[in-house]
Parts: sequence; C-alpha cells; structure tokens
Amino acid sequence: MSHDTPQSPPAAPDPRAHLSSPATRSTLRIQNQLIAAAREYLTSAGFTEMLPPVIGPVTDPGSRGSKQVDIDFYGHRYKLMTSAILYKQASLLAFDKIFCIAPNVRLEPLETTDTDRHLAEFHQLDVEVAGADRERITGLLEDLVVHMVRATRDALPADFELLGRDVDAFTELLRGSFGRRTHADAVAELRAVGHDQNPDAEIDWTGEALLSSKAARPFFVTDYPKGSRGFYDRESRTEPGVLRNFDLIAPEGYGELCSGSERTNDYAQIVTRMRETGENPQKYRWYLDLVREGVPASAGFGIGVERLTRYVAGRDAVWQANAFPKLPGVVSP
Amino acid sequence: MSHDTPQSPPAAPDPRAHLSSPATRSTLRIQNQLIAAAREYLTSAGFTEMLPPVIGPVTDPGSRGSKQVDIDFYGHRYKLMTSAILYKQASLLAFDKIFCIAPNVRLEPLETTDTDRHLAEFHQLDVEVAGADRERITGLLEDLVVHMVRATRDALPADFELLGRDVDAFTELLRGSFGRRTHADAVAELRAVGHDQNPDAEIDWTGEALLSSKAARPFFVTDYPKGSRGFYDRESRTEPGVLRNFDLIAPEGYGELCSGSERTNDYAQIVTRMRETGENPQKYRWYLDLVREGVPASAGFGIGVERLTRYVAGRDAVWQANAFPKLPGVVSP
Repeated sequence: MSHDTPQSPPAAPDPRAHLSSPATRSTLRIQNQLIAAAREYLTSAGFTEMLPPVIGPVTDPGSRGSKQVDIDFYGHRYKLMTSAILYKQASLLAFDKIFCIAPNVRLEPLETTDTDRHLAEFHQLDVEVAGADRERITGLLEDLVVHMVRATRDALPADFELLGRDVDAFTELLRGSFGRRTHADAVAELRAVGHDQNPDAEIDWTGEALLSSKAARPFFVTDYPKGSRGFYDRESRTEPGVLRNFDLIAPEGYGELCSGSERTNDYAQIVTRMRETGENPQKYRWYLDLVREGVPASAGFGIGVERLTRYVAGRDAVWQANAFPKLPGVVSP
Repeated sequence: MSHDTPQSPPAAPDPRAHLSSPATRSTLRIQNQLIAAAREYLTSAGFTEMLPPVIGPVTDPGSRGSKQVDIDFYGHRYKLMTSAILYKQASLLAFDKIFCIAPNVRLEPLETTDTDRHLAEFHQLDVEVAGADRERITGLLEDLVVHMVRATRDALPADFELLGRDVDAFTELLRGSFGRRTHADAVAELRAVGHDQNPDAEIDWTGEALLSSKAARPFFVTDYPKGSRGFYDRESRTEPGVLRNFDLIAPEGYGELCSGSERTNDYAQIVTRMRETGENPQKYRWYLDLVREGVPASAGFGIGVERLTRYVAGRDAVWQANAFPKLPGVVSP
C-alpha cells in the first residue's frame, strides 16, 4: 500500500510493459476469477444477467465531483453511462433479481490522478433486487463478497504468491461478519482523531483512508445525509434527511469497494429529490415515464470491479487492475 | 421472418411493454444461456476473458457505412469503440487466447432503421487466438456455435415453445459442418439469379438475405476483396487483393452473425493498408507503437450477440434481442 508514501502520478503506463508483466497477468486472472465466482453465486440464486446500455439520453448524476461525457446521437445530446442505476430499476420490469457487469465512464477531476484509486473508465458489478430492503441487500452483498474472495483464494494460490499477497489478510472477511457504523458515527470518530470531516457530505478520501487503514475487516458505513447522494437513494421514512444507503469499505487502507441503497421508486419523491439535487426532471423523461406508471421497490448495489480486484490482489493502485487503464486526464490506449 | 413483408420502421418500442413482455423475457434468457455456454466453452479451452475499453483515442474504422462517435476526453478527441479489434490484438501480449463481451456503438445510416438487423448500440462476443490461421479459427467458431446452440436448446425448452421457435431448425447446424463458399462464388451465384452484386464490395444486404434465405445450415463466405474490409484483415500472400477473412451467415434469411479473419500484424503492411483505406496512421499511435515492437500473429472473430440471439430465438427483428434497444436515429432509453 502506498497511501502513506506519495508518489508522482503515474504517467500513462507503458502498454507493452503493463500487459506483458507477470503481475498484471496474475491480477487479471484474479479479476476473472472474482467475476466468475460472482456469476456463479448470482445465477445459482436466481438472478438474470442484463447487458445494459453504455449510451442514453441521461445517466446517473450522483457521482462525486466527476464530469459526464456528452455525445451526439443523431443530433440528440446523449451521455455515456456513469452507472447503470436507471437501467437497473427499469430492468426489474423484466426480472425480479438482476445483475450486470458493465463499463462506466466518469471524467474524474485531475487531482484524482494520483489517489491510486480513480480511473476515468472502470467496470461495475451491479445488482438490484425487487422488494429487498437494506438488511436483505447488505446480507446478500456480504455473502457474495465472501463467496467471490474464497473461490478466488482457493483457485489461484500461485497468483497470490507471485503478487506477494498474503491470503491470511482475508481471514476476518471470510468469517462473513462485516463491521457496521453509521455515517454520523464515522464522522464523530474522524473528528475525535482531529480529521475535519464535513458531517453533511460523503466521507472524504483522507477520512476514508483513515477509517480503512485502522480496520481489520470490511465494514459498512450507513445512513449518509441526503445532500451527499443521488435522488435514487431512498430517504428514511422515520429519520428525514437520512438515506437508507450504505458503502462497503475494505480494510488495510484500500478504501471504498461498493455503494448501495434502498431505492426511491415514488414518482413525486423522485421529482422532489431531483429538484433538491439540482437536476432537471425534464431530462429524465423515459425514466420518469416508467416510474409514474410504476417500477418495483428495490434495493441494490454496485461493486467497483477494479477496486475489488486491487484489494484482493493487494496492488498499489487501481490502474494495475485494468488491462488498458485510463487515468484522469492521461492519454493512453 | 419479415424480410419479405416490409413493415413501417418500429418507432421506439415502448420500454414497459417491451421489458414486461414474456417474449422479451424468453429472448433475454436465451441470450444469457448462449453467453453462459460461450464462457463455459472458451474458459474450458484455456481462454482468458478481458474487459476492453469502450473509449479510446482511436477505434475500428472498418464498419460498413456507419459513423463513429466522438467524445471529449479532457480536451482530447476520443472515440466510442465500434469494435474491440485493436484491443484484441494488444491483449495477446498478456494471454495467447482471449475473449471479451463488450458493447459497441456504431451510428448506422438512417436507412438501416427498418432492416430488422441493425442497432446503433449492440454487443459483440470477440475472440482472438495467437498463432491461429483461418482453418483453426473457423473450426473453433463452428465448435463454439454448436456448443452455444445445443446448450441453449437443451436448457430452455419452455422459452423456445413460448416463442414458437421450432428447435428442429438447428438440426443441420448441430451436425457441425457448416457450408463454405468464397466471396467470388457468392457474387457469381447472386449474379446468376439476377442480383447485381458488386464483386469488389461486401455482399450487400439484399444479396446476403437472398443467400441466407436459401440456406438450410450456416455457411461461411470467405476471401473478401481487399477494399471491402479494414486494415486488420490480412491479405493473402498467394492471392494479392484477397483477404484471409470470413463471415458466418445464418440460414433462414437471418443473415450475418459473425465476421473474422487472420490479422495483419506486420507494421509496414498495416501502415500501407491504413493509407489504402484512407486512414491516417498518425491517429493510431498507441496501436502502431505496439505493432512496431511486435504483436503476435493471430486470427479471431466477433459474433454479434443480439444477431445470434435473434436467430436462435427466431425473432422478427434484432432490436427484440436487446432490453433497451437503440434503433438508428430513434430516441429511446
């Protein structure tokens, strides 16, 4: 881990050196095995895989400081998908339990080039379950992550050895009981150690690194404040201003792996939340047309494939978990 | 099949009606099963799956009359991927046998909206094998398609029944010996029945539909003339002007399912071919830098996932094989 030893931002990694490196091969094999184990787990549990679009009239507006990419679709302004969230909710009209593994593009600010944890293009393993609440979806996420990590640890001992990744690091994770604290508690904990975390915002990267470095097992941060997330994370009925959502944070300083939530599926609430977050509901016409006629209540999550791979493989930076990494602002294949 | 009964172009299909239709569900289950069977086959055969980029400085220029999509990547002009071809060749620096299933975006001309076989966004199952020649790669493709169709026929009888798709249609396919003719023979055959096929170009859609409708089993068309394809399809050493490539065409009028070729991997030949096809080699810098230092000789193919699904499911149009179909020029989710 290099969180405490700042390095100069990696220029575009040399494609030949990166692709032909044994460490890259081992990392990509670990990634494949993680994904294969997820497919196995979810398919056995009755999930249907979807192939969501990468372009559309509108996309997830809720991504922390990054810019969306516009495209011209036959004279209409379309977007590249920053996440599959709108299509996940819509897909529940076809199947009750769905997942997808799809590319997302987010033009992250240039200052994230050297965080070791941002890519401008990455993949998410997205899951959505009709009728689920937060308890059920975090339970599923725990079981899924345990299955993915166990299957990968068991299948690829030579790759872990080549990478120098001690699989004893997963002992607590494989016990399957993840930590859990609220956003408010995480803020208090950070302030107690002198980190000036804003109580109305996402846990910032420094704060997240602090919490993650101290942890011996993955943990959830729940109940983010309303202003910090997109309109699709449902607000608590009993605690106004608090969202029924969660992040999953890795131990050892690797930081966030996954975000999820119960979803807003009430038309009026969605329009209100869009307005509160500065979004113009007119842009979301296809989505709001579906919601007005009804989409199922649901909960779901999205796992950052490269971030999970980086953590499991024990790599220094998330770009090492992508065959053709795109660092923010850096021209590369 | 509606090839002979022209209909008005489908306006954007209603998303709720499309997603909640039993026929769509059955079609998407068939698609999933086809993909799962492909993964099973290829993984068992020692292939590694890749997650290729959807954006990059340059993309496949070789797609028949469609337009590329430009994006602004931190002030640099990037493209959406029209195919994974450049990344497939590069990926062979990491693994000898690779595959990927990835979205592609091609702004097809508006006149393709009602061909029943074009989408502006679709998925390809892409395969590339270092050291393979055309015999070996077409043999692999035959075995793969037979495995995919057999596994799907056996797994989902209720879905075929719901769709009214008689699985006896696959009897010839499942015998595994596909037809084969050269482009020149296909041109002669079409001209003999009065269709004015240009001998220097791709088989046009009408010609392809004619050949496909007459066929009782899938068949290859091989040896396309040089001007009709991209720089990456290798030219024959013994027959100048003839490419070592192939298409796989479905029977029953469903048309092309797959294109493939032996690849050009010689730097000087690639630059020459780029210039011949009107491409500026300067744009392909990352790719040409890799090729100059050496990438493996290879052969590979790309199967249109929605096209294969449409054929196997026996649907009227390819858009019915996509949960969120994007028809050329039509605004939809």
